[in-house]
Amino acid sequence: MKQNAHKFFIKALAFDVFGTVVDWRTTIIRECTLLGKSKGINLDWAEFADAWRGGYAPAMNKVRNGELPWMNIDAIHRMILDELVVDFDIEGLSEREKDELNRVWHRLKPWPDAVRGLRRLRRQFVLASLSNGNVSLLVNMAKNAGLPWDCILSSELAKHYKPDKEVYQTAAELLGLKPELIMMVAAHKDDLCAARTVGFKTAFVLRPLEFGPEGKPDLTSDPSFDVTAEDFIDLADKMFARM
Amino acid sequence: MKQNAHKFFIKALAFDVFGTVVDWRTTIIRECTLLGKSKGINLDWAEFADAWRGGYAPAMNKVRNGELPWMNIDAIHRMILDELVVDFDIEGLSEREKDELNRVWHRLKPWPDAVRGLRRLRRQFVLASLSNGNVSLLVNMAKNAGLPWDCILSSELAKHYKPDKEVYQTAAELLGLKPELIMMVAAHKDDLCAARTVGFKTAFVLRPLEFGPEGKPDLTSDPSFDVTAEDFIDLADKMFARM
Repeated sequence: MKQNAHKFFIKALAFDVFGTVVDWRTTIIRECTLLGKSKGINLDWAEFADAWRGGYAPAMNKVRNGELPWMNIDAIHRMILDELVVDFDIEGLSEREKDELNRVWHRLKPWPDAVRGLRRLRRQFVLASLSNGNVSLLVNMAKNAGLPWDCILSSELAKHYKPDKEVYQTAAELLGLKPELIMMVAAHKDDLCAARTVGFKTAFVLRPLEFGPEGKPDLTSDPSFDVTAEDFIDLADKMFARM
Repeated sequence: MKQNAHKFFIKALAFDVFGTVVDWRTTIIRECTLLGKSKGINLDWAEFADAWRGGYAPAMNKVRNGELPWMNIDAIHRMILDELVVDFDIEGLSEREKDELNRVWHRLKPWPDAVRGLRRLRRQFVLASLSNGNVSLLVNMAKNAGLPWDCILSSELAKHYKPDKEVYQTAAELLGLKPELIMMVAAHKDDLCAARTVGFKTAFVLRPLEFGPEGKPDLTSDPSFDVTAEDFIDLADKMFARM
């Protein structure tokens, strides 16, 4: 894959999390299948997982345009879950069980390369999450999955959701770094493009299975990104090759 | 030492950093002595370190009462340093050297028990810094000293300085925990008392050498704190004994 081959000087990597670091879909299907068996609920849990994730962007947009007050992702996930419980005719879940289910987002499992790649990258760079997930979600996820962040950064700290520019600006301010010393790492081009408008460098990581075996994520090459990587091991190789 | 002997249920520990986790005075004296030798500056660097630290509370108070706009600790340390350069008749430091010297606060060394104690505590608790130091200072310090935080929390996130209650409230909100599930750990009673008014549990850690061999920190026992510990190893022992 063609890369911009010049050297660059980067101090910190800021990572999108849902889809880029963790495989939300597989984890949710797995946990829901177990829950369904124990509660006698028979559903297409893949469809359920996709609907849950699908509700997320529209809900964030409502926060963005003021239709909803600021609420963190835990609250957004719970709001969508309450709608899905109705839409999918799910019965027999107590409030406590719904709360516990909602926290599946705190327990998402990393892609197989993620922890190893992050550990390598951490030797050279400051590693920060930069997710729309709230801080406590990211802390619990990191502890559960062994994600070696130097710093948990979240849209919650800016009270804006990505791709609003305030999120990236707040991250640069908190890291005490000029934006050009930070590289945004994401499997989503809109996130990278927004980070770039603020001055961040960009690394596009391919996650062909984010939306499942039938999913069709945009994996087309875009030479305007500074790096394109197959996974975090490849990202580490490419970053170290250009130091 | 007498302890409140009941069991408690704690999810996260929030640590004061300067003086509690790291030995600011020894690190600053050591670095300044080396700098002085290389630049031919002859000073009582212990007196200099104490003056630098001594300027910190008055400067934060000026931010608190609105006399100064919000500025982070890097900016406060630099403002005090610029005054000290005059007061101590220090000559021959370039702007760049002063910036580098100012970042000694990012390189403070932990007390000998700190990393080992934190590693033990981390198996059971979410460990967060909760310092007046800014986020980037705490990130750099953690990376340099191997402090195993799960989460970097800072007064900077609340745009208030401890002991303002907003700092503790913001920490609880970001950790997604009721205050009574969080224990503030500090060598300073005012920090613990302020955390307690918000509902935090409290652990007082004795740091008899914070202000040097001649220093006289308040080490008197106070049974109103939930735990008093000699150091972080003792803190881990006492926490695990009461789970």
